[in-house]
Amino acid sequence: MYDVLVVGGGPAGISAAVYLQRFKLKVIVIAKDYGALGQTTHIENYYGFEAPITGKQLVESGFAQARRLGVEVNVGEEVLAINGSEPFIVKTNIKEYHAKVVLLATGMSRPSLRVKGFTTLQGKGISFCGICDGFLYRNKRIGLVGSGDFMLEELDVLKNFSKNITIFTHGEPLKVDVKEFAVITEPIIELLGPETLTGLKTSNHQYELDALFIAAGTPSASDFAMRMGAFVNPKNEIEVSPTFSTNIPGLYAAGDCTGGLLQISKAVRDGAEASLAINKYLKTKTS
Amino acid sequence: MYDVLVVGGGPAGISAAVYLQRFKLKVIVIAKDYGALGQTTHIENYYGFEAPITGKQLVESGFAQARRLGVEVNVGEEVLAINGSEPFIVKTNIKEYHAKVVLLATGMSRPSLRVKGFTTLQGKGISFCGICDGFLYRNKRIGLVGSGDFMLEELDVLKNFSKNITIFTHGEPLKVDVKEFAVITEPIIELLGPETLTGLKTSNHQYELDALFIAAGTPSASDFAMRMGAFVNPKNEIEVSPTFSTNIPGLYAAGDCTGGLLQISKAVRDGAEASLAINKYLKTKTS
Repeated sequence: MYDVLVVGGGPAGISAAVYLQRFKLKVIVIAKDYGALGQTTHIENYYGFEAPITGKQLVESGFAQARRLGVEVNVGEEVLAINGSEPFIVKTNIKEYHAKVVLLATGMSRPSLRVKGFTTLQGKGISFCGICDGFLYRNKRIGLVGSGDFMLEELDVLKNFSKNITIFTHGEPLKVDVKEFAVITEPIIELLGPETLTGLKTSNHQYELDALFIAAGTPSASDFAMRMGAFVNPKNEIEVSPTFSTNIPGLYAAGDCTGGLLQISKAVRDGAEASLAINKYLKTKTS
Repeated sequence: MYDVLVVGGGPAGISAAVYLQRFKLKVIVIAKDYGALGQTTHIENYYGFEAPITGKQLVESGFAQARRLGVEVNVGEEVLAINGSEPFIVKTNIKEYHAKVVLLATGMSRPSLRVKGFTTLQGKGISFCGICDGFLYRNKRIGLVGSGDFMLEELDVLKNFSKNITIFTHGEPLKVDVKEFAVITEPIIELLGPETLTGLKTSNHQYELDALFIAAGTPSASDFAMRMGAFVNPKNEIEVSPTFSTNIPGLYAAGDCTGGLLQISKAVRDGAEASLAINKYLKTKTS
């Protein structure tokens, strides 16, 4: 059992982990990759570095800094689902973890499906959460966008509601085994309305659907948050209090996934502030 | 004429200056010394540094980072007074500067005079601002605590109100020429009440006073802020909006002097946020 499991190894997650470790809590960081920061080639506005650094250097320094202090940092492991509450059960592509507190710090939410009709039909037959909305489409024609583990997790949920599910990989190669379900690999070109979703078009074909669930790429912080019942605003940012708690006890979020200034300094500070609140929360629970 | 003059060369001031410079504004940082951070020997919780660093290293990296980007950074220069408004006239021990915006980032306010009676008599005959309160003590017996340039500035104000002024250096050697005024160098032991200040005791003597003005050491951010009419809370923290503006147009404050978490990460982020607001403010004024 961990005191705190941090999802995300960027500035917010590592900053929080470093503080939490110093509070003598048992902390683990699960980082799927180097995140958005890892792609940045030239950072010169983060305080304390005389010469410009790359995002990769900074992310690696962060991992090393946390590890040096004793934080367990698992890079390349991917969180697929978070269930339960106090303790949370965190399922990754490798194993399951139990943690009293989960801190979501996975960076900015990925862009939505950028195809014609997406914006106007959001919430009108398009969903990001099978657990939340699957029940609404019992025995209906469901489309599911995705190609990897995350899609498979979502499929596991949705197949309890309907057998009529079509997977759309949206141009990606299928990376998992979906057994009996139909798989369309052509890119989606347009979602069809007009009032609610009625189907979608690929380059060669048109499909009639009652609902389309999006589980492309990797689940973002807001995907986890929504599935757990946490408030997420229309910009896909997790709503947090000034101490970075969500409305779910024990679930915190920090950094870009909570909106605001998308800068390293802000993420680092979020992590520090969140760690103080988490430490206090854990102390209150055990006293 | 500078667009922005930053008082303080720590994480908040330098972080802001770096952003402001990148907004192509004309920025100068005036740093009296290495600040509280410069005294810190072992920093391991500021994100991005694998091995522990000293405060001195971090402060120097900050200076170098800002200078590399073209920011003028004057270390060892001390701001003594800030007057006027839009432009502000900033007087240092070396010269005078004009700036459209001033950002106060001088770190935490120095400790108050730690002698018996200080806490109970604060605001009851004890003042931190001659411009604010001098008028209340016209032709009264005034004590003035201090030994350097800051005290001299305050003396210049107070002597317009009373000729009966005694300087108390509180154990420090007198560093400036105060001409005709009496100077007591013994440490102050107790401030005398009981309801309002009636005098003070040194090791050898007792002095009757109607008011005691404190101008010891260097003026803190809250000293400047108070003199300019900005709101300062009872904890001596400058009150700022979420964008780090004070109630005085063009006067901003960031970092420890505004309260909250006294951590590098918070100061760095404050500076970044303040710079965005300052840039916007200057754009609005010139458009």
